[in-house]
Amino acid sequence: MPFATPQDVEDAYYDALDSGDAEAMARVWESSEQIVCLLPMTPLAIGAAVQRLWQGIFARGIRFDLQVRHLTWIEHDDLAIHLVEERSSRHGGPMPPPIYATKVYRRAADGWCLVLHQNSPTPPPPPGMPGRPATAVA
Amino acid sequence: MPFATPQDVEDAYYDALDSGDAEAMARVWESSEQIVCLLPMTPLAIGAAVQRLWQGIFARGIRFDLQVRHLTWIEHDDLAIHLVEERSSRHGGPMPPPIYATKVYRRAADGWCLVLHQNSPTPPPPPGMPGRPATAVA
Repeated sequence: MPFATPQDVEDAYYDALDSGDAEAMARVWESSEQIVCLLPMTPLAIGAAVQRLWQGIFARGIRFDLQVRHLTWIEHDDLAIHLVEERSSRHGGPMPPPIYATKVYRRAADGWCLVLHQNSPTPPPPPGMPGRPATAVA
Repeated sequence: MPFATPQDVEDAYYDALDSGDAEAMARVWESSEQIVCLLPMTPLAIGAAVQRLWQGIFARGIRFDLQVRHLTWIEHDDLAIHLVEERSSRHGGPMPPPIYATKVYRRAADGWCLVLHQNSPTPPPPPGMPGRPATAVA
């Protein structure tokens, strides 16, 4: 069931990550061959491969409790692009660098869905700084 | 001067990369504080920092001759999103893995400009395979 706003889709995406709910994650995405998901250091998934990617992640018991900060919104008519910064909340030791994510939402007749999610790791910390390169999934 | 189509903007972006022309690169981008550029393993640049980023890259004599392959186009009214695969053409030895890029173009009254460019490295090759992780800029 599509969503009333792009932000509703985004909230559902992060809720599904947090709960490891593959069915909830599946509902976030547009039902089309055009969807794209690119997680850090993970092969690009297009179309049906996106659902298989998430099913595989959640089947391994992986969960993500992320703090999300909006950097930019671009919204016009039936498309919305959100650039966000994701930080892991469950991390012992030094705070890892953030991961960026561009998310593209599209509105169909019955509501909004996610069509593209692209993560990018950030640079490793400068020499001598605590922390490590951001290579975690999502 | 903005461009007639999103593809015209994209062609001008890669021409500027190839020639190392900072002025040509500056014309590709929308003149706004909302523009975003995220190159691999490079800090996020927003607004005026985008132009400074490219000026710094080209001032160091860095050029990029990239082969570009389209993976997905999403175009609606005044927004266009292109997901492309970039491969370096100037590389001795094994072909490096591709870099992905999501690019968002926006149409104003006088034409199209680039508003967001996000690169993502791809995974390192499997153990035993030739090649290396994709960490080159753009």
